[in-house]
Order: sequence, then structure tokens, then C-alpha cells
Amino acid sequence: MGEFDLIARFFDRGPARVAELGIGDDCALLGSIAAGARLAVTSDMLVGGRHFLLDTDPVGIGHKTLAVNLSDLAAMGAKPVGFTLALALPEANEAWLQGFSRGLFELADRFGCELLGGDTTRGPLNLCVTAFGEVPAQAALRRDRAQPGDDLWVSGELGGAAYALGELLAGAGQTLAQSARERLERPEPRVGLGMALRHLARAAIDLSDGLVQDLGHLCDRSRVGALIDWPSIPLDPALSLLDPVRQQSLSLSGGDDYELLFTAARDNRQAIAALSGRYGPALTRIGRIEAGEGVRILDARGAPVTLPLGGFDHFA
Amino acid sequence: MGEFDLIARFFDRGPARVAELGIGDDCALLGSIAAGARLAVTSDMLVGGRHFLLDTDPVGIGHKTLAVNLSDLAAMGAKPVGFTLALALPEANEAWLQGFSRGLFELADRFGCELLGGDTTRGPLNLCVTAFGEVPAQAALRRDRAQPGDDLWVSGELGGAAYALGELLAGAGQTLAQSARERLERPEPRVGLGMALRHLARAAIDLSDGLVQDLGHLCDRSRVGALIDWPSIPLDPALSLLDPVRQQSLSLSGGDDYELLFTAARDNRQAIAALSGRYGPALTRIGRIEAGEGVRILDARGAPVTLPLGGFDHFA
Repeated sequence: MGEFDLIARFFDRGPARVAELGIGDDCALLGSIAAGARLAVTSDMLVGGRHFLLDTDPVGIGHKTLAVNLSDLAAMGAKPVGFTLALALPEANEAWLQGFSRGLFELADRFGCELLGGDTTRGPLNLCVTAFGEVPAQAALRRDRAQPGDDLWVSGELGGAAYALGELLAGAGQTLAQSARERLERPEPRVGLGMALRHLARAAIDLSDGLVQDLGHLCDRSRVGALIDWPSIPLDPALSLLDPVRQQSLSLSGGDDYELLFTAARDNRQAIAALSGRYGPALTRIGRIEAGEGVRILDARGAPVTLPLGGFDHFA
Repeated sequence: MGEFDLIARFFDRGPARVAELGIGDDCALLGSIAAGARLAVTSDMLVGGRHFLLDTDPVGIGHKTLAVNLSDLAAMGAKPVGFTLALALPEANEAWLQGFSRGLFELADRFGCELLGGDTTRGPLNLCVTAFGEVPAQAALRRDRAQPGDDLWVSGELGGAAYALGELLAGAGQTLAQSARERLERPEPRVGLGMALRHLARAAIDLSDGLVQDLGHLCDRSRVGALIDWPSIPLDPALSLLDPVRQQSLSLSGGDDYELLFTAARDNRQAIAALSGRYGPALTRIGRIEAGEGVRILDARGAPVTLPLGGFDHFA
């Protein structure tokens, strides 16, 4: 199977629908964006053996390769439009490609997000998606808009993906519950929620490197600080029997949650609570934005929580 | 040096100029595209040790990583706007990053093409750029518009990059002329030429996998055949002393030329000849489009030329 057969068999799905011109030319052509709208662009690279274990079900890898990008679009309040895929493969393994493309397109089709083009080459397994979405100009959920006094909200439950990764790395994959494994391998991008928050949230970020680290990015960009109320953090059920230190480590510093963290004016508290569960998971108020800088965490007694681990850094 | 320091030191150049929002958020935001314009999107992945030798000057690697994408925009007649960069690095080598980012931004700045965002991770060396350009809706130079009777044109001289790669792989780098090495390591994307051809050319493609293979793609998409007149092929000066079989192999099947191959109505012959040398290299008429299918090559006596090698295929 050559490079062009591979593209034709697994990735070319006929004439473009969203795009004016799709796979098969030097470039894809995207039609005009609606007046007043902006194109949101994000790019994520997944390295085999680093962002996922090499024996992961390829359907899950296909899903996650796109999901982490759609999660970035969601954190911007953008509606997915299309994506490019560049992949380096050690070999043209048909079973793997079949699974990978199935997982990829199942997710893409659910959000009407079209594969526009890309590149296929040989090399150590590497998957790079660049995704595009549309968002009204003034409605984009930027990181730099948080204000002191804002409520701090998070979607879903935290720590499940980091827990599952730890179990897999410890060789405990056989006893890992399917639901825990799916938290790691099939993150659900909160696209509908992000769009619903367009005129309710002030600032937003998606959780990929761990709550405290990602909240730190949002605070840095907004030049504010934040206070997290530890008892209010929604923990993944898989963490329920763990000791408090591990619960804190996994939910505050664990990566790969792909939930939305956002700030909103107190006036919007009821409107946001009314969205809880309507676009997937429940929404939980976990703290507030403060003047100053840095992220503080307080326990049930009001004492500061100290984290044993920082967030994830690929070069630390 | 952590991941975020690395981005700040080598890739973040302050507030966005072209984009409404650049590096540092979940997504970049591109402003509205002009009414009637289309966004051209292309993505190329370069694998260390495969698309370039690992000991290549990092300035050249930075240049080429972007250049191959700008070449795709040029082949569409699009004006570069911006790009994302995702890179996997085996280590955070400062000298390498310094050189790489210098080569990247020198080229980007020449075309006013802004880095919008991306991703940095650890892994086997892999560089993935997705580039964006703007082109008026009806002016895009697609592959599927060639018509029987069209002239077939090429920019510049062919075979130099493949020659240089062969010499480097044979360990003859010490004696390789600088001009030959630059054909391989510093391809110049024909952006100005592509834009000038918007209303003169009918179909276009950039040469990355070799003339015959890339012309074959253009013919397949346009459902036509093509005839190449071998004596008219402009050979890179580095090929002048080689035997004819090697000249044919390098210029017809050698990759990495990054010149533009395009078709145009005979009526535009003089207008195109007048562009020759105005946007970089000379333009040469090398054959014509025919009804039917496939690519034929005729020598000075009108006898068919048979190629010893096919074009490049990553999985063949």
C-alpha cells in the first residue's frame, strides 16, 4: 500500500461538504467566514508512547487526536468547522489505520467537522491535527478576560484520566474499570457547553495540563489571582477510595481532563447553574478570581493546601 | 528550560499583528476574510532524518519547514497570512532552537506570515506547520482545471535538490557547492509568482515529489494527459556534467524542487513569458496538456524517454 492509496482508502471521503475544496490539491479552500465572525485556529501534536501508550486501541487514539483540538475550540466558544491531519507512521498497518480513522471520523462527524487535507509520511508515530472553528467576534472566550470577583467554574469531574494513566503505567490495566479507561482514552470535548457559555463566561481555558497549572495560565494572562475551595472540587468516582493526598494530586495536578475551566460574573451564577448537565456534565463552582497573582487552594478548615506535584511540562 | 520558557524565548514575538489574537490562548483568532476571498489551508510534516539529514544547519531546517508550506500556498495563488507550528524535540537544545527559529522567522517575515500558535512537546524530531493564505474565490490555481491544448510551464531549474541530497548521502558534502546545497536546504517558495499567475494560469501544483509524479497528480485531477519535451527541461547547473540518464532521473523524478508547474492557455503565452524572471526564476515551456491520461516524455528525436525511477512515495 503506497502513500496515495493509504490516503484514498482511509482518509479521503469524497467531495468536500463544508469546504469549497478539500483533500487532493495543494491547499484546501475554506469559504468566506460570516461577517463579524472570527476563525479560531489550534494545533496539537500527539507523540506515540508519550501522549498515549503505544498499545492503546487505535479507535481511541483517532478519537483523542481530534478531541484534544476540539477541546481547545470549545474553550474558545467556537463551533468546529474543519481540520487538517498530518501523521507520521512507522509502517502502513491496515488494522491500525482502520481503527484510527474510525475513531477520528466518528468524532468529526458528530460535530460536522470536516477533514480538509494534510500529510502522510513515514516516521516515529506522530499525529498532528490543526482544527478550525467559527466564533462571533465579541463572543470568543479568551484567557485574558477574567476579573477579580468572578466565580470560578469547572465542568465535569477531575482526576479520572490521570488516575487511569497511573494504573496503566503500573501494569494494572486488567483491573481498570472501563469508565476510568474511557476518561483517559475518549475525552469528550465540551463543544456545546463552550458555545452555550459565549455570553455567560468571561474567560475560559480547557484542562489539559492539570487544574492548578491551567488556572495559572488563565490568571497570568488576565493579571489576576485565584482561590480554589478544595472541598468543592468535583472528583472523578475512580478517586473515591484514595487517600486525600492522592485525591488532591490527581484532581489538582493531573492532566488530560479536557474539561472546561471558566470564570463568570456573580450575576450570571443562576444562568450558568441552569446550564449544568444540559451540555454533558454538571457544572461546579470551585472558587473565585481575586486581585493579585497566583493560585491559592484552601481546605475545609481554610488552611492552605500544598501540592506535592506541579502540572505537566514536557521539558521540565 | 521548561516548555513555556522555550515558547517564550524562541517563538513568542509579542502581540499579534495579522491575527486578532495570537500565541498564548486556547486558539488563535483570525479576523474576517475579505468578502469573496477564500482561505487556503495546507499542512506538511517534516520528520528528522527523513525529510532532512539530522546534521543539517538548523537555520536551514527552520527555513524549509515553513518554505514547503508556503510553496503549497504559492501553487494555489494564495497570499500567505499566518501559520501554526507544532514541534516534537528530543531535547530542548538552545543552539538548535536559536538557529531553527531564526531560519523560520526570516522567511516568515519576508512574506508577512505570522506565527499564530502551536504546540511543543518532547519526542523524535518532528516539525509540522499548517499555513494559511488568502486568495480571491475565482482566482485559486487548482490542480483540476487543466485542459487539453494548454501549454505546460515550469519555474526555475530542476534536479538540483535531488542531486545535492545524493551527494550528501554519498558522503560528498565537503565538495558540494554551496549553491547546490542551498537548492536542497533553502528552497525559495514562489509566492510572488503564484499570485502573479492568478489570472494567467489554468492549473498549478508545486514540485515536491518529482516532476513526473506531480504532473501525474495534476493530470489525474484534471482527467487529462500530458506530453513533456525532454530537451526543453531546464536543468540545474549542478547536473551539467552528468550523463543523460542521471540528468533525466534527477530532473524528472527527483524531489524537493519546490518550483511551480502550471498549465495555461496558448493565448497567454506572451503574457507568461513576460513574467519570466520578474518573480524570481525564469519560466520555461516544457510541453503541453493532451486529451487522454498519463504523462509521456519525448526526447530530441521524438522517441519516448523511459524513467529508471518513479517519484517519491513514503510507503512504497
